Amino acid sequence: MLLQDMTSTQLEEFLAAEESKYQSYKAKGMKLDMSRGKPSAQQLDLAAGMLDCVNSQSGYRAADGMDCRNYGGLDGIAEAKLLFAEMLNIKPEEVFVGGNSSLNLMYDAICKAWIFGTGEGAKPWGSYEKIRWICIVPGYDRHFAICEAFGIEMLNVPFVNGQPDMDKIEALVAADETIKGIWCVPMYSNPTGTTYSDETVRRFAALKPAAKDFRIFWDNAYCVHHLTDTPDSLLNIMDECKAVGSEDMVYLFASTSKVTFAGAGLAATAASEKNIAYLKKLSAVQTIGFDKLNQLRHVRFLGGYAGLVKQMKKHAAMIAPKFEVVLSALDKEIAPLGIGSWHKPNGGYFISFDAPNGCAKEIVQLCKEAGVVMTPAGASFPYGKDPQDSNIRIAPTFPTIPELEAATEIFCCAVRLAAAKKLLAERK
Amino acid sequence: MLLQDMTSTQLEEFLAAEESKYQSYKAKGMKLDMSRGKPSAQQLDLAAGMLDCVNSQSGYRAADGMDCRNYGGLDGIAEAKLLFAEMLNIKPEEVFVGGNSSLNLMYDAICKAWIFGTGEGAKPWGSYEKIRWICIVPGYDRHFAICEAFGIEMLNVPFVNGQPDMDKIEALVAADETIKGIWCVPMYSNPTGTTYSDETVRRFAALKPAAKDFRIFWDNAYCVHHLTDTPDSLLNIMDECKAVGSEDMVYLFASTSKVTFAGAGLAATAASEKNIAYLKKLSAVQTIGFDKLNQLRHVRFLGGYAGLVKQMKKHAAMIAPKFEVVLSALDKEIAPLGIGSWHKPNGGYFISFDAPNGCAKEIVQLCKEAGVVMTPAGASFPYGKDPQDSNIRIAPTFPTIPELEAATEIFCCAVRLAAAKKLLAERK
Repeated sequence: MLLQDMTSTQLEEFLAAEESKYQSYKAKGMKLDMSRGKPSAQQLDLAAGMLDCVNSQSGYRAADGMDCRNYGGLDGIAEAKLLFAEMLNIKPEEVFVGGNSSLNLMYDAICKAWIFGTGEGAKPWGSYEKIRWICIVPGYDRHFAICEAFGIEMLNVPFVNGQPDMDKIEALVAADETIKGIWCVPMYSNPTGTTYSDETVRRFAALKPAAKDFRIFWDNAYCVHHLTDTPDSLLNIMDECKAVGSEDMVYLFASTSKVTFAGAGLAATAASEKNIAYLKKLSAVQTIGFDKLNQLRHVRFLGGYAGLVKQMKKHAAMIAPKFEVVLSALDKEIAPLGIGSWHKPNGGYFISFDAPNGCAKEIVQLCKEAGVVMTPAGASFPYGKDPQDSNIRIAPTFPTIPELEAATEIFCCAVRLAAAKKLLAERK
Repeated sequence: MLLQDMTSTQLEEFLAAEESKYQSYKAKGMKLDMSRGKPSAQQLDLAAGMLDCVNSQSGYRAADGMDCRNYGGLDGIAEAKLLFAEMLNIKPEEVFVGGNSSLNLMYDAICKAWIFGTGEGAKPWGSYEKIRWICIVPGYDRHFAICEAFGIEMLNVPFVNGQPDMDKIEALVAADETIKGIWCVPMYSNPTGTTYSDETVRRFAALKPAAKDFRIFWDNAYCVHHLTDTPDSLLNIMDECKAVGSEDMVYLFASTSKVTFAGAGLAATAASEKNIAYLKKLSAVQTIGFDKLNQLRHVRFLGGYAGLVKQMKKHAAMIAPKFEVVLSALDKEIAPLGIGSWHKPNGGYFISFDAPNGCAKEIVQLCKEAGVVMTPAGASFPYGKDPQDSNIRIAPTFPTIPELEAATEIFCCAVRLAAAKKLLAERK
């Protein structure tokens, strides 16, 4: 029975029963965490062998003979560039392999545009009174935090029919030359799990921004992170850009954080050869080079792209059942009541749950008080402000399955509690 | 016999003999490199065992239980912070362990001051029409390159009696609030090998800059890089600053690039707790954390500061004889002619050679044509401009001893050639 179809008496009985369940959960004093998209220890174990690939007996030379222990190799060893090129389906010349964090590379790209501009002769973003940014919502909190730190004004653009609202994006960028960028997680988007359609990708490539230094930040964080045997597919934005001559408009980012080690993976920026040349010129002043031994470890362990794909299947085998725990609980515990909506993603790290409007903060608070840490409500929106107070990001990968079962049970109870309270309040 | 005491006929005979030697060197078609302060492969072998300290069987947890493979630990694991704290003789709370490059940390410190200011409420450096920087010369080319990239105007301050000219530095910073920083390599300075005296350090700590956001960039790159059993000693600037209440004025930098692996070491920023708190706040937006497995590798391998000191003695045993090759050749081949000056450093990576004025560029060019790559003349000065065209930085660590002997022979010949030509030209 839908919650909204209950009489007020039924609703009050329902609420009382949920209150009692909630108190019993609370009494257990559990400590559970569904807040961050972290791999579990078991997933990290999948890459244990990588640590043996570079040891005191292994030799330290890249294919071109470079001693990976010493200085040099600003943009990465050739075989690491090739790995990312295959992952993103672009040319090795379009790859810059940086440190262990793609977030850091995105931050760095904004720093460089801020101080030096996006290319030779371009005006530094920092020299504008104000610049603005398009944020597809819900989205990734760490993206939005970068804009907030820089004082970049964020403009929300929602999904429409499961895709970014391209009409709105096209209109915004065409009209306002202070709009300098947009965050995109084009595949298995954080948190919605959305993969951009071919039409969406083509429309991104065909954008006609008023600002010549407008950049698409294409954070392809989950490009190989499929959960099923029928994965989504994503059109290659670089090809589409080249087809219309807009290849300087896009920066791609990827990492192996969720392929090997979350804290000790490789990250890369990919861009047009012109943009990469500029990035290399600026970076040559910043560092002599990133950790090439870790690059060597990766390419030896993964053995190229085919090995990487194989590795990801092992991750999927571990993660998919965790998604299933949450999804089947939601189907069973929430769907019949009609108090929330969500999608089953084909990949990525999250389930995006939309609670009845005005309930998300309370649900997260109820979870917290019962020992379950969720991502803060609102985190998937700029400035932490969800206008509907509805979206909650669920991250099922880190806990064990029994932990996840317990946490999901509490989460579902919190959703029912909050929804029933709200409905009752509305009727009064 | 001093070159200047030769008659013109003697000088012409000398020149002809050197020309003939030079042509024979050139004919050999050698390829030698004394240009960069890189450790040799043998030095890197000293840390081979480090790579076995984290492997598939080793366990991955830091002392506090953190899984070093996963996300987190923004400012480094506690034991890595302790290692740098002991290295720099400061508190672990004053340490931020970053990636593999202290140069990158310095660049980052300037980026952050440029965009966000040096602390809460401080005006961003980038919002000034122009800012300026003091560069003690000769100094480190990569420091100067950062200033040049940012468009920071560099002001040269020379050494006087073997120490930075503190009178001039004090006067400059007191008079001009657009002077925001100074580069210092306080121990075994690049390239001169100078260690700052106690008085110099105290005068740095006691600086009274007009700019409240003036910062001393104390690049203690060679703090443990002694070459002899009677090393220099350096006063602790943090203690001196605290004694006069100026501890927010200094950023310290250090790395293990020349302790373990040049390309895969650890780097750290050290600063007052107030400055570290600000750095952590800004960095939390930039990255989730640096490579903690490499931190674990380091602390397991070095086993703390005592182990690090022991490791450095092994480096000294390899490097000291290389310095000796160059110094004894200079003593034998150049000193009697009076056509150059240099010091024997007690540590660091360089010998700073001052040729007769107007000869450095030609010497480096002659070396190049005979197959010996030197650091470009002028590199140790801002904008690559040595006003005397005299200083040449010699980096003896990377070549083997036979290579170094051959390269030094050619270098000495080039010095004699250039000096004799110049003297003859002056007499005409």
